[in-house]
Amino acid sequence: MDSKFQLVALIGKYQTSGSSTVIAGSRAALEAVANFLHDQGCDVVLEADTARNMGMAGYPTLTVAQIGEQCDLGLVVGGDGTMLGIGRQLAAYGVPLVGINQGRLGFITDIPYDNFASCLSKMLQGEYVEDHRSLMNGRVMRAGHCVYTAMALNDVVVNRGATSGMVELRVEVDGHFVANQRADGLIIASPTGSTAYALSSGGPLLHPSIPGWVMVPIAPHTLSNRPIVLANTAHIAIEIVAGRDASASFDQQSLASLMLGDRIEVTRSNHHVRFLHPKGWSYFDTLREKLHWNEGVAST
Amino acid sequence: MDSKFQLVALIGKYQTSGSSTVIAGSRAALEAVANFLHDQGCDVVLEADTARNMGMAGYPTLTVAQIGEQCDLGLVVGGDGTMLGIGRQLAAYGVPLVGINQGRLGFITDIPYDNFASCLSKMLQGEYVEDHRSLMNGRVMRAGHCVYTAMALNDVVVNRGATSGMVELRVEVDGHFVANQRADGLIIASPTGSTAYALSSGGPLLHPSIPGWVMVPIAPHTLSNRPIVLANTAHIAIEIVAGRDASASFDQQSLASLMLGDRIEVTRSNHHVRFLHPKGWSYFDTLREKLHWNEGVAST
Amino acid sequence: MDSKFQLVALIGKYQTSGSSTVIAGSRAALEAVANFLHDQGCDVVLEADTARNMGMAGYPTLTVAQIGEQCDLGLVVGGDGTMLGIGRQLAAYGVPLVGINQGRLGFITDIPYDNFASCLSKMLQGEYVEDHRSLMNGRVMRAGHCVYTAMALNDVVVNRGATSGMVELRVEVDGHFVANQRADGLIIASPTGSTAYALSSGGPLLHPSIPGWVMVPIAPHTLSNRPIVLANTAHIAIEIVAGRDASASFDQQSLASLMLGDRIEVTRSNHHVRFLHPKGWSYFDTLREKLHWNEGVAST
Amino acid sequence: MDSKFQLVALIGKYQTSGSSTVIAGSRAALEAVANFLHDQGCDVVLEADTARNMGMAGYPTLTVAQIGEQCDLGLVVGGDGTMLGIGRQLAAYGVPLVGINQGRLGFITDIPYDNFASCLSKMLQGEYVEDHRSLMNGRVMRAGHCVYTAMALNDVVVNRGATSGMVELRVEVDGHFVANQRADGLIIASPTGSTAYALSSGGPLLHPSIPGWVMVPIAPHTLSNRPIVLANTAHIAIEIVAGRDASASFDQQSLASLMLGDRIEVTRSNHHVRFLHPKGWSYFDTLREKLHWNEGVAST
Repeated sequence: MDSKFQLVALIGKYQTSGSSTVIAGSRAALEAVANFLHDQGCDVVLEADTARNMGMAGYPTLTVAQIGEQCDLGLVVGGDGTMLGIGRQLAAYGVPLVGINQGRLGFITDIPYDNFASCLSKMLQGEYVEDHRSLMNGRVMRAGHCVYTAMALNDVVVNRGATSGMVELRVEVDGHFVANQRADGLIIASPTGSTAYALSSGGPLLHPSIPGWVMVPIAPHTLSNRPIVLANTAHIAIEIVAGRDASASFDQQSLASLMLGDRIEVTRSNHHVRFLHPKGWSYFDTLREKLHWNEGVAST
Repeated sequence: MDSKFQLVALIGKYQTSGSSTVIAGSRAALEAVANFLHDQGCDVVLEADTARNMGMAGYPTLTVAQIGEQCDLGLVVGGDGTMLGIGRQLAAYGVPLVGINQGRLGFITDIPYDNFASCLSKMLQGEYVEDHRSLMNGRVMRAGHCVYTAMALNDVVVNRGATSGMVELRVEVDGHFVANQRADGLIIASPTGSTAYALSSGGPLLHPSIPGWVMVPIAPHTLSNRPIVLANTAHIAIEIVAGRDASASFDQQSLASLMLGDRIEVTRSNHHVRFLHPKGWSYFDTLREKLHWNEGVAST
Repeated sequence: MDSKFQLVALIGKYQTSGSSTVIAGSRAALEAVANFLHDQGCDVVLEADTARNMGMAGYPTLTVAQIGEQCDLGLVVGGDGTMLGIGRQLAAYGVPLVGINQGRLGFITDIPYDNFASCLSKMLQGEYVEDHRSLMNGRVMRAGHCVYTAMALNDVVVNRGATSGMVELRVEVDGHFVANQRADGLIIASPTGSTAYALSSGGPLLHPSIPGWVMVPIAPHTLSNRPIVLANTAHIAIEIVAGRDASASFDQQSLASLMLGDRIEVTRSNHHVRFLHPKGWSYFDTLREKLHWNEGVAST
Repeated sequence: MDSKFQLVALIGKYQTSGSSTVIAGSRAALEAVANFLHDQGCDVVLEADTARNMGMAGYPTLTVAQIGEQCDLGLVVGGDGTMLGIGRQLAAYGVPLVGINQGRLGFITDIPYDNFASCLSKMLQGEYVEDHRSLMNGRVMRAGHCVYTAMALNDVVVNRGATSGMVELRVEVDGHFVANQRADGLIIASPTGSTAYALSSGGPLLHPSIPGWVMVPIAPHTLSNRPIVLANTAHIAIEIVAGRDASASFDQQSLASLMLGDRIEVTRSNHHVRFLHPKGWSYFDTLREKLHWNEGVAST
């Protein structure tokens, strides 16, 4: 009817591993959302992999690139992992994303499936909050050549080999020497990633509006090596100085067997991811819920 | 002669407590710097309190406000505390500051006294790096009225009373409820203050270029209450919900005996402090030196 | 009848602040437990303060000292705070304690009121687990004289004054110099206290069977000042080296206005507290429940 | 002459990797110590691998087992790693160990080479402090069978695979369920190991006299999963519940490719390691030196 978004792409969980029961449940959810969108006057397409994985015929399908070029909105029915994956791919196109979660709400998939109709009907009318997330460009340089590139929405992680003691990493920011870190590894996390691995490793939370990354050492040898928040305009370089079998991971996609002298470089992408939330959404409500604040330990 | 800064104000340690020997040492240092500046073609004035405390006649004196209105440069001979104090007062005037340290170098007073002549001669020629630090406006609201205001360059701290168990604080950011925190207290620190009390309490380092504050709970009841970095454009409000004898401190200037319902509010000041460093200065060099990075624990 | 415990003392909440409704609820609970005990063949007495606070006539009353001398069991209907207080007082007498909690279960009051009859009937038959907790003797020495003594079941805390910057503490263990600590304060916690303030300040959990105390610095200046677990046979001395208005607290009972040179000394008490739990009780079940383990953060 | 120790074994660095210059330096040191011992009336033997690695003829040699059976003292010239290795092997025999360090002092090799003669002459007369360290027995159970055993003086570590996300571990203590931990891994450290990897991962220090292990989660998913100190009489079992390519390490000797259902079990060894230190030695002096306490951060 009068939706602000005409052509809407539906995207399901990436790795719908598991039983036919689970897949049937996901498919039913996608179909319910598709029908609802149609009733609201939207044109609905399915992301091609989703259609194949779910065995859903009867809808037009588009590849992710086509969605990027043609769609007005991406609607993810899945968890944070699915949202992160599609977010990275659609960032270059500027297509906004909405996340519906069938299970426990995530940090970024914050519309409960049970309640999707009332949430979506308002959002389609334009009652939403827009939330932009910055993206990292990562690359691995070896002997002056780039041997790997990847984008990351959560984090870039450099890790020691599994059974090889610690790694020593030389960190530079904008060409300034920062420190040689001996540790299990080092995390460069975006505000989005600050609630994930970086948090487990002792890092702070970064509000999504902060134009920075947090660099968090993992089990550092030097006890005063603390997390540091750097401007996201900085050029960060991490060189493998010592340690066997180090690896670099970009949103958990890994390049293993790094060699001494390899440099992992991180800069800000020119693109960002656009998440839409229901009006009244607050980042702090999500934090409070997910981190169990206000439940306290009854100390004696 | 050809100094970029014509009228230079000299500022000494605030609380030169202690023996006449110590004061004589500080006075000798100030005189040496004054003579040097004169030789470089600068006009030298003394900050009025410095002149009185040190018993230095023979130089024109100006109040801090007059320094702000008239001087081209403020030259602090002292430690970080002195630099912070004068920085807060001169921020509104935009006068840049240089810090010379007679003892162990500070985070922001980074020119060793033993080496001041060669550093300063280049800086006076324009060979310096400029480093801007954001400032907080703090105020305490009681029953709708403002009962206290102060600026802070390091941090705003809300603390429980000394012998009164914990305090409960309700935190809001831009009108959004964040959490009720039961803790010893809460620190809102600037990047400058992130190396001070906030660091001791488990907070991350914030690079000076980050337009944010870090909010650090002190001994929080809820173990998942972690430091969070907020945009410095945010309006932060902390309300005393429970606890006797709470206090609020702004760069360690304290308002004690807060009452239930009192709100401590923090916003960004329109002013900032301008520090000048020798060319080639790197924030990371200072961190590495001050935090003893690269000295490691020889774990077995 | 055949209860293992003949004379049982009932102890209610210490500070039953608040409304007559709350008091009525507590009184009803105490009466229900008393009736139950009577039915089980026990002789029931009320702790004298409890009887007065609750306005309960009709039961014989005993002071705490008399309970210590005469009773076979103390039955607390309240929270961990009440249990800690009576535990300290009864330790010298060796009377075992059981804790019934009307609200959210505590670390040591682990029998839910709703279920007390089935729990207690078995415990009175001898089906219980005994759990001994070590106690600290604390004292404050000034100019060679003891000016204060107190026992602590949770912790001994030395704290800076509320608005007076940090305190500097010289720590000695068995006459060996450990370190000069500049911090907000220092906690010496027993295993029982390791789940309270020490935990909020970054300390580890200590299983009740560990014959040790954990010393936890609060917001230490030196980042490598980490919690350390010491044998509870050690003699720990903490001297106030610098800082105004420091205080010492023993299970939150405070001695304020400590002077420079004052020494807070901690040794193990010859007594211990005896808690009884239902058979099958596990310390780890309590930890897991109270600390919300296995609830996780759904990181993305 | 009148040494308390007649037959003394000399043990050099295990992996004297590197240049002939380094080896020559180690050999010269061993020879100087051997000559000194001879002058003190001791009979000197060389550990067989040391003799071969160093190319030292002219001394009788014994295997480690023979040293255990025959010698009165083991004298290590090397670092903490060498001391740990030989300590594990000699524990069953009760031979005491002294550590001489040519470089920076270690936590347990605390006699500086430059000063060895005056230290040793007193120690040989009986002026020493004895310091016992507990040892762990570790084993890996698969499908009810033991597939690996090892002793550890520092720590037993269970780790995720290098590029495989987190591992989920089910922890039991004395048959009681503790928690399912999702994390990078889990460390069980002795007091000796509490200054090593466990410290980097956020664990507390344990005084050597504490009869306990500390269990430290590495980057735990659940933020309230904190280090916990357990009695060393406990039977600790860690089961691999989820995660590919997990590994178990015993003092850094690793068993890789653990399978789901594998259980890593830790109990206390019946043996302990005996370290001898010069009279007046204090564990706290070592800590203070190694951890750079009392050097502070000059916060502003």
